[in-house]
Amino acid sequence: MMSTPRKPVIAVVGAGKCSKKLRDMACEVGKYVAEKGGVIVCGGMGGIMEGVARGAREAGGLTIGILPTDLKDDANEFIDIVIPTGFGEARNIMVVRAADAVVAFPGKFGTLSEMAFALHAKKPVISVNAWRLSEEIHHAESPEEAAELAMKLAVPSGE
Amino acid sequence: MMSTPRKPVIAVVGAGKCSKKLRDMACEVGKYVAEKGGVIVCGGMGGIMEGVARGAREAGGLTIGILPTDLKDDANEFIDIVIPTGFGEARNIMVVRAADAVVAFPGKFGTLSEMAFALHAKKPVISVNAWRLSEEIHHAESPEEAAELAMKLAVPSGE
Amino acid sequence: MMSTPRKPVIAVVGAGKCSKKLRDMACEVGKYVAEKGGVIVCGGMGGIMEGVARGAREAGGLTIGILPTDLKDDANEFIDIVIPTGFGEARNIMVVRAADAVVAFPGKFGTLSEMAFALHAKKPVISVNAWRLSEEIHHAESPEEAAELAMKLAVPSGE
Amino acid sequence: MMSTPRKPVIAVVGAGKCSKKLRDMACEVGKYVAEKGGVIVCGGMGGIMEGVARGAREAGGLTIGILPTDLKDDANEFIDIVIPTGFGEARNIMVVRAADAVVAFPGKFGTLSEMAFALHAKKPVISVNAWRLSEEIHHAESPEEAAELAMKLAVPSGE
Repeated sequence: MMSTPRKPVIAVVGAGKCSKKLRDMACEVGKYVAEKGGVIVCGGMGGIMEGVARGAREAGGLTIGILPTDLKDDANEFIDIVIPTGFGEARNIMVVRAADAVVAFPGKFGTLSEMAFALHAKKPVISVNAWRLSEEIHHAESPEEAAELAMKLAVPSGE
Repeated sequence: MMSTPRKPVIAVVGAGKCSKKLRDMACEVGKYVAEKGGVIVCGGMGGIMEGVARGAREAGGLTIGILPTDLKDDANEFIDIVIPTGFGEARNIMVVRAADAVVAFPGKFGTLSEMAFALHAKKPVISVNAWRLSEEIHHAESPEEAAELAMKLAVPSGE
Repeated sequence: MMSTPRKPVIAVVGAGKCSKKLRDMACEVGKYVAEKGGVIVCGGMGGIMEGVARGAREAGGLTIGILPTDLKDDANEFIDIVIPTGFGEARNIMVVRAADAVVAFPGKFGTLSEMAFALHAKKPVISVNAWRLSEEIHHAESPEEAAELAMKLAVPSGE
Repeated sequence: MMSTPRKPVIAVVGAGKCSKKLRDMACEVGKYVAEKGGVIVCGGMGGIMEGVARGAREAGGLTIGILPTDLKDDANEFIDIVIPTGFGEARNIMVVRAADAVVAFPGKFGTLSEMAFALHAKKPVISVNAWRLSEEIHHAESPEEAAELAMKLAVPSGE
């Protein structure tokens, strides 16, 4: 019925505070996904979330930020569409549900909950040095490999 | 810090099943908002939600659908970005929180809850023959007037 | 299969800040419900919520408070079981879903959203001078009448 | 201000389908917690959740079930107070937030998400052969040890 399927949506999850190196790696994932026609969804805050949004924005892509707070101004400056849930960490499940595939960077228990929800929902999960939980997780050695895998494994809706 | 402010996001709420006339009016709102550079957010389902998404899509605008279910395929075909919450009617509060202004068409108690949350959150509410609840609600006589008022009253974040 | 059906659960909703007179009326509702074997669920905060919890507690009843915050200590002192959601006003829908009948006192748009959700979920709603929204709402002249109606209209699960 | 502190609330999480042996172990935890004056909160469904609720009920304790569905009748028969969220797996975070300590039995990714949220919220987590995630998790060799640790580590609110 739809003439064109929706663009694939890639979630990128990871620590809200991280090293410059990790933020740059997330930035590379965002850039690659945007160049290949994907949309980035993330938690909208700092660290990995800011890195991936910056990369996607700079490559002309669309970025969605699903915030824990109910205040749009809490989003990082590279988020185009802000969804301020006011649900705290429970918004993690929405980041995952909005995605067709999930790229996970290192993070603490918030990131772990997102990976758990993604595995529960049977979404493809690509780890870049994140939690080792299950054989169902794909491992990538580089941002490019992670992004490529995510775009390949994502099954966008509307097809 | 941001070079450009975010686009205004206009929520359009109303019945999931409605007359062709009302759906066409919602379509007009979507069209107008998109032409003026706004983004449409709605509940992603049928009726008013489908009408407004169609209008915005046809005018080249971006449409966000925040679903009650956790299944992307439940979104109507004019939704570009699907946020499948799995929260049932509790997603209504997220539709409102994502918006900078809310246009309300006639609807039942789900629509009423969205208007209540919008008033609670002190967002501008423009009614097109919807529930008469409060003097804080703006009334519009036509889709054009509703859309114009919404775009005028919306205060996008990031400015 | 169950030897005994669950106790009826009565939600009492209304303003978080209110006059002593209204708080005392809510207290009467809580007392009556507890004496008749019902459980009180409310939003756990002040005003009407504190009044009803106090009344139920003093009559030996059980009180459940479903908080907007994620901090148990935000509950008023008459709440036995605290459910700290961290969901803000979206917790209103949970107060309603936990109930077999809803008694509504005057309140602002948060109360309105709870009444809207209750009507949407087809739960019995008994108003004590609250929002006049629909012919489906029952009106009570006194706390006793409200409590009596609520206990009569509640259909506890497990029967 | 409160004359008596609230009773400690112990969450017990684990698979919705499990062996009779595990269900019996969960039952032992429920029984012990109830005997020591604690309240049981769980996800309200089958498996571990049914086991723990049965044990607590049989020992005269109070059981709270926070359901993924919005239907009270989905709760197992040993739940006294049903909170039907309609939030799907996102209700896991509420089970954790309602608790003063969390006992985790083996389970899949839903259980993992609950452990992740508990660690994120810095609640004491006692594992009975559940996911090995962090040094912050306490390990128990038996239901009795798990329940005893949970009651000891729980810091009820209102004190």
